Amino acid sequence: MTKFDEATQAIRVDETTYDVCLDPGYSIGGPLNGGYLMAVLLRAVVDASPHEHPVSTTTQFLKAPTPGPARVIVQQLKAGRTAAFTRATLVKDDIAHLEALVTTATLPAEQDVVYTGGPEHLMPPPDDCVRLPDPKPESGMTLNAQMEMRFDPPTIGWLKGEPTGRPEARAHFRMAEPQDPDPFVLALAVDALPPVVFSAGLRGWAPTVDLTWHLRALPAPGWLTLLGGGRLIADGWFDEEVEVWDSAGRLVAQSRQLARVGRG
Amino acid sequence: MTKFDEATQAIRVDETTYDVCLDPGYSIGGPLNGGYLMAVLLRAVVDASPHEHPVSTTTQFLKAPTPGPARVIVQQLKAGRTAAFTRATLVKDDIAHLEALVTTATLPAEQDVVYTGGPEHLMPPPDDCVRLPDPKPESGMTLNAQMEMRFDPPTIGWLKGEPTGRPEARAHFRMAEPQDPDPFVLALAVDALPPVVFSAGLRGWAPTVDLTWHLRALPAPGWLTLLGGGRLIADGWFDEEVEVWDSAGRLVAQSRQLARVGRG
Repeated sequence: MTKFDEATQAIRVDETTYDVCLDPGYSIGGPLNGGYLMAVLLRAVVDASPHEHPVSTTTQFLKAPTPGPARVIVQQLKAGRTAAFTRATLVKDDIAHLEALVTTATLPAEQDVVYTGGPEHLMPPPDDCVRLPDPKPESGMTLNAQMEMRFDPPTIGWLKGEPTGRPEARAHFRMAEPQDPDPFVLALAVDALPPVVFSAGLRGWAPTVDLTWHLRALPAPGWLTLLGGGRLIADGWFDEEVEVWDSAGRLVAQSRQLARVGRG
Repeated sequence: MTKFDEATQAIRVDETTYDVCLDPGYSIGGPLNGGYLMAVLLRAVVDASPHEHPVSTTTQFLKAPTPGPARVIVQQLKAGRTAAFTRATLVKDDIAHLEALVTTATLPAEQDVVYTGGPEHLMPPPDDCVRLPDPKPESGMTLNAQMEMRFDPPTIGWLKGEPTGRPEARAHFRMAEPQDPDPFVLALAVDALPPVVFSAGLRGWAPTVDLTWHLRALPAPGWLTLLGGGRLIADGWFDEEVEVWDSAGRLVAQSRQLARVGRG
């Protein structure tokens, strides 16, 4: 069991209740990372489902939870032969923090592809990409230590005052502690990039309002590639789309989140 | 009040309950159209919210309802100054048919754009596009009569056995009964195209499992442009993305649905 597996563990209390413990190691400077929280919630949902994989997850981020013990309440809405529908709530200190709708199904180990588009960007190999500098301990950014990321250089030009002017972020991704990617790692991956609006010249914390992601295939071992973009920044709102490609060149996850532009 | 406004009406019974009547005029040959059902559900959610617009809607399609009286049960999860979060269920004959999570907010009449991408396809004008032939009465496809659509010719090549080989569908869209587009019309619009997989050579009913869409701006009067595509068809699942552009050239809605490939 890796540190990530442990940090996302959900212990069954009864048919609808799971005990979890939110780990301080996934903080983005106070709030916990949304992808990590989704992974915790999905552990409970998948355990409670007759199916094995979370093929579609929508999460509303009602309130940013602090680390510590919490519960996931699951309610089966319908369980069919192909898919099951579950409502799930992450509750801490008696307050709902995340609300989710999850569709589970069982994907085959061998993918049967009728049509696939290709990645819209070709990434330079990891060795030609760059790391972000380690965050200062006082920043409270503990999340960074859990993941290894290598960024496509232009997409972090904003770090030295050279944003590209477009919402974008692209990186190679893997867990810092060696671990083959699985659907829970993908939940972390779809929310692991810096907000794409940084590359459009904006700054400040960009809270996710809701995030939907689809698991399209079980990822092969090795690096994942995260390709992030966005279509519109307006009225204080922006969308962020992330595609996750695995080392076998397959599209394994697609996400879109609606988030608020930071004020900072 | 247009026929569409009437067909989507939600009458408040109490704080959490709305009466609705599902209209047989939105059938796609038996089941009612998912976009129409979302519009009905959103009438109740918006009425119950302190905010005016459904900026994010995720709907799970648990069971296809037949026409007739039904109820929408709404539950406020959190109402903040910027956004409110609501859970909503469409119940008919005591059975949950649609389950949704909706985020409402209030968008300004004048949009303040920081960044916008452009449409990825330039549509020929409506007069150079084509209509679908009227469905036969015995098909039960009553939905088509509610909308006017003009298709980008290659994307309905599948009608005469010439699919493009890619998941795609593009059309100009407006209501048959003159009506300025609003967020409820957009709920219909994001699910109005024929399944994009038809253009990839597949056929048969393609049931939506879940659909998430974001309202990004209040649409200007006039034609809407629907640009539909998809990234992956595999293991019996496909994704369908639709962007809706208004007559002022603005991106007003974005959707992605996960659906099953038809067996027919």
